[in-house]
Amino acid sequence: MKKVIKGYSYTFSAENQPAAYAASGETLTFETLDCFSGLINSATDLTCDFNYNSANPATGPVYVENAEPGDLLMVEILDIRTVAAGVVTTIPGCGPLHETQEHRTKPLQIINGMVQFNGMAFPADPMVGVIGVAPADQPVPCGFPGAHGGNMDCKKIRKGTTLYFPVQVVGALFALGDLHAVMGDGELCGTGLEIAGEVDVKLTLLQGNGERWPVLETSDSWFAIANAAEYPAALKSASEQIQTLISQAYGWDLTDTYLYMSLQSDVEICQACKPCPVDLIVRVSAPKLNNIPLITRKAK
Amino acid sequence: MKKVIKGYSYTFSAENQPAAYAASGETLTFETLDCFSGLINSATDLTCDFNYNSANPATGPVYVENAEPGDLLMVEILDIRTVAAGVVTTIPGCGPLHETQEHRTKPLQIINGMVQFNGMAFPADPMVGVIGVAPADQPVPCGFPGAHGGNMDCKKIRKGTTLYFPVQVVGALFALGDLHAVMGDGELCGTGLEIAGEVDVKLTLLQGNGERWPVLETSDSWFAIANAAEYPAALKSASEQIQTLISQAYGWDLTDTYLYMSLQSDVEICQACKPCPVDLIVRVSAPKLNNIPLITRKAK
Repeated sequence: MKKVIKGYSYTFSAENQPAAYAASGETLTFETLDCFSGLINSATDLTCDFNYNSANPATGPVYVENAEPGDLLMVEILDIRTVAAGVVTTIPGCGPLHETQEHRTKPLQIINGMVQFNGMAFPADPMVGVIGVAPADQPVPCGFPGAHGGNMDCKKIRKGTTLYFPVQVVGALFALGDLHAVMGDGELCGTGLEIAGEVDVKLTLLQGNGERWPVLETSDSWFAIANAAEYPAALKSASEQIQTLISQAYGWDLTDTYLYMSLQSDVEICQACKPCPVDLIVRVSAPKLNNIPLITRKAK
Repeated sequence: MKKVIKGYSYTFSAENQPAAYAASGETLTFETLDCFSGLINSATDLTCDFNYNSANPATGPVYVENAEPGDLLMVEILDIRTVAAGVVTTIPGCGPLHETQEHRTKPLQIINGMVQFNGMAFPADPMVGVIGVAPADQPVPCGFPGAHGGNMDCKKIRKGTTLYFPVQVVGALFALGDLHAVMGDGELCGTGLEIAGEVDVKLTLLQGNGERWPVLETSDSWFAIANAAEYPAALKSASEQIQTLISQAYGWDLTDTYLYMSLQSDVEICQACKPCPVDLIVRVSAPKLNNIPLITRKAK
């Protein structure tokens, strides 16, 4: 029988009470609200009171049995199903073009997998915006990212990909929410096609190896994802994490790894909607050269 | 008979003497040195004296007949051919991981289209690093980017793509150089696989429409490319340029265009090797929705 997770929270916190318990290897279905908790639906529902501290409800948390700090939680995104309608909205003061924006909410329909926009249509490509584990330190509102994950806003977190989170607290306290039916890299105005839905994931505990940031695996690449108040620091953290993984996996020193990265890694942007208060989020890639894994799936 | 361009310069400048003259619609072949002018070839040739003001020789400039400020110069990249060997090198103080790098030059061979690296191999993907027209104002050394193009270091400038440069001086004074046999988005350590070669381009003069930054067209997308000392300003300029083009082409107001961009544009990085003195370079995309062109090819 399908195990469905329904409770939600507006923070990632070691203090949150578990909504459910799961064993390593279990598959779960998360029912998720949209980032506005369902309160913004029509063109007259504006985001006047948008507050990053009470946005992006994350369903969970799930207490993963035997999870301890230093483990890695492997999260396989098995499926994402959204409802057929959502909204994209401006948010005051959000994104590089906010100075010329009017305050607007645009409801959009999805028909046969195609997003309808001003009489045109483009493919939906559902992704998970908020996903992660509880941080060891202070609670982090779900609107913000961190080494624990959170509001990662990475459009590559879609069906068929796998995430690896360094566990920070006993039980991991995994949660997810904030689906987007489609979003561009950068999420320029601060919202994707915000929408409710369901996500099927498989959670597996692995042995950690000192990873500091979330790592994403797709069919052809690995990515390290990191955030900071400004771009240079986010780039440095994501670059260091993928450099460490490549160096360990291929046995190259840091300089050879760096030269290789300059030829084969891509620097990419997850979120770029500053001057909003949310950090800048960068991912740095490494292709699956010779299929040597950057993270080995050693069960805990 | 093939028209071959051979002279080169270390600046983009309105004062440079033309290496050749061309009519709109002509196809030319540019013979290019590598970014080190052929001086760095073996593991013992280090980049100790690297100087951004005397790097990246650009072949040309070509004076395009009838070109005037306000025109657009369309540059179709018909082919890129490299020699079979090049180098990737660290550069002191360059890139987010420079603090842990040793000073190293790594010569690399290309065999059957595959770059050989520490006993492994990955595909070459030749691109043009330096390409542009003369700026109206002060000369710009070829190591630096600007609204005139220059050291754009955008890996999407490959065979089959088309660039559009706002012409700034009479004759345009187009030049290119600095081929990379392969390079990742970001060019993290500051060099790609630096290599000599030849590039075939077709140059065509179009009517401009107030474009401020170089625009790139691929088979499926458009991109605006902009640079600045820091990431937020580069992102803003590239976002504004693509917003203007989308708004004009689709007849949407700026806010609808912004919402659309948040769903469908990708923020991408061309170059990210600060703290070197070179600007940060960002590109922002727009897919070819309904095949409505963002720049119409109206001949001048």
